[in-house]
Amino acid sequence: MGKLLIVGTVAFDAIETPFGKTDKILGGAATFIGLAASQFDIDSAIISVVGEDFPQKYLDILTDRNINISGLEIVKGGKTFFWKGKYHNDLNTRDTLTTDLNVLADFKPVVPEDYNDADVVMLGNLHPYVQLSVINQLKKRPKLIILDTMNFWMDNALDELMEVIEHIDVLTINDEEARQLTQEYSLVKAAQKIFKMGPNYVVIKKGEHGALLFHEEQIFFAPALPLEEVFDPTGAGDTFAGGFAGYLAASDDSSFENMKKAVIHGSNLASFSVEKFGTERMLKLNHKEIKERLRQFKKLTQFDIELQ
Amino acid sequence: MGKLLIVGTVAFDAIETPFGKTDKILGGAATFIGLAASQFDIDSAIISVVGEDFPQKYLDILTDRNINISGLEIVKGGKTFFWKGKYHNDLNTRDTLTTDLNVLADFKPVVPEDYNDADVVMLGNLHPYVQLSVINQLKKRPKLIILDTMNFWMDNALDELMEVIEHIDVLTINDEEARQLTQEYSLVKAAQKIFKMGPNYVVIKKGEHGALLFHEEQIFFAPALPLEEVFDPTGAGDTFAGGFAGYLAASDDSSFENMKKAVIHGSNLASFSVEKFGTERMLKLNHKEIKERLRQFKKLTQFDIELQ
Repeated sequence: MGKLLIVGTVAFDAIETPFGKTDKILGGAATFIGLAASQFDIDSAIISVVGEDFPQKYLDILTDRNINISGLEIVKGGKTFFWKGKYHNDLNTRDTLTTDLNVLADFKPVVPEDYNDADVVMLGNLHPYVQLSVINQLKKRPKLIILDTMNFWMDNALDELMEVIEHIDVLTINDEEARQLTQEYSLVKAAQKIFKMGPNYVVIKKGEHGALLFHEEQIFFAPALPLEEVFDPTGAGDTFAGGFAGYLAASDDSSFENMKKAVIHGSNLASFSVEKFGTERMLKLNHKEIKERLRQFKKLTQFDIELQ
Repeated sequence: MGKLLIVGTVAFDAIETPFGKTDKILGGAATFIGLAASQFDIDSAIISVVGEDFPQKYLDILTDRNINISGLEIVKGGKTFFWKGKYHNDLNTRDTLTTDLNVLADFKPVVPEDYNDADVVMLGNLHPYVQLSVINQLKKRPKLIILDTMNFWMDNALDELMEVIEHIDVLTINDEEARQLTQEYSLVKAAQKIFKMGPNYVVIKKGEHGALLFHEEQIFFAPALPLEEVFDPTGAGDTFAGGFAGYLAASDDSSFENMKKAVIHGSNLASFSVEKFGTERMLKLNHKEIKERLRQFKKLTQFDIELQ
């Protein structure tokens, strides 16, 4: 059973969309990654930090899904990272209303001994300093290190981000961020520039427009499933990353063919995540639904053209 | 051999992109549609109008490709429709600088007798009044009537547009226009509303983000090929429509499975069109290149996931 080590935020989110709003609910990159990855037969652990205000029932959600939380530090008297955001009508853009780092501000990650030999490490969106610290604590080089990041770190910690990118195998990033990082408008050229920074694989996430996987001269494209209703996009990118990393940890195969499948699994799980607020849909997901939707993905994309 | 009747503009375009600019060159919806469709083994004709200023060499380009121009009226002393536009840096948006309707203003289309029994009719973007007039002149109901339109007609001739949409089988339209026409943000819901207006098939074009084909409860998605360089998007949508209609006229099969192939052929040809100014790339396209790129489309989208 593949070992997956996940680093990222565990947080409270308060979300407003055109369809409604929530109080503080369970959120954070590592949470979404962990929940998505838990759909696969793997041994996973989360490295993160929360405050004393973090409820036991949220911890139980993780442990109930066999996610190891020995690396999830609980700071006495501390408050959990809190993000509040409001989506615009098209759901493609949002305003951040509140970002209270709280215990995240001084977070020093500690890799549990049982997981410093992880097969796959998924570095969720977080300060590159934290991501790098995790890599440096590993006893052996994982088969795959996957990194997700965002424009905030390009603006505020570019040198450290570039240093961690040197050490990874797969970068997942959205289209605008890929353009910002490389100063290339063409995503094909952007991916080629990113290869020179370190990674062998680049996944460019385009939200409702799908995701592109680049490796050497090869490109694979997975659409997002066209949905009647998108309720809340929060965590869709992290759910994608969790499905991607979880599948790769379970299958132990880093070939391009297998990476393609990982992209499809990630897109598939993300299509569920957006149907309800926060983690709600992911917590009630069963294997039958997942398989049924994979079938839809096949129908959506597969065709047969004779090439005599 | 399937008969394809094409209606649309034949025009002069002057184009400015971040990569350069042109004087008046050959353009127009019917031109791009005709050139794309001529890649298939069909009998095609263009219904349109030009002025006396339209050069013989441009007419030769059409007839050299076996496109019948007996329905292409040449107005003595008249001037050809002229469009001038400038693309923004991202190539996704553009400003129209000049639109001189000229001979197009009083255009009364006449369907040549040899083509009033066409198998497929491709109504390119034009005043819905002209599109409707062509339908009314047909001796028998074609197997397929495909209509392309744009937001300009929704703003300025909505009643006539709705009337022509009642009579068609396939509507091709871009994502923003689909949303405007239906007042639905979800493209799935938009397509369902369009079905109620008349067509059985809806193709929603998303430019660099690909195209969606809807039919009853089925959805198919074709990505745009990720390109290193996009030089000039002018005519890409018409080239798509021409490839789509041309393939359907050649194959005489309106099943969903075959429509999927038509969408791929359309996307494939459009991927060439954007590589040079105007029609330049389409005029130097050979079958070997087309097949090679179809292979790339397959590689880009095909995957194998076991669904036990």
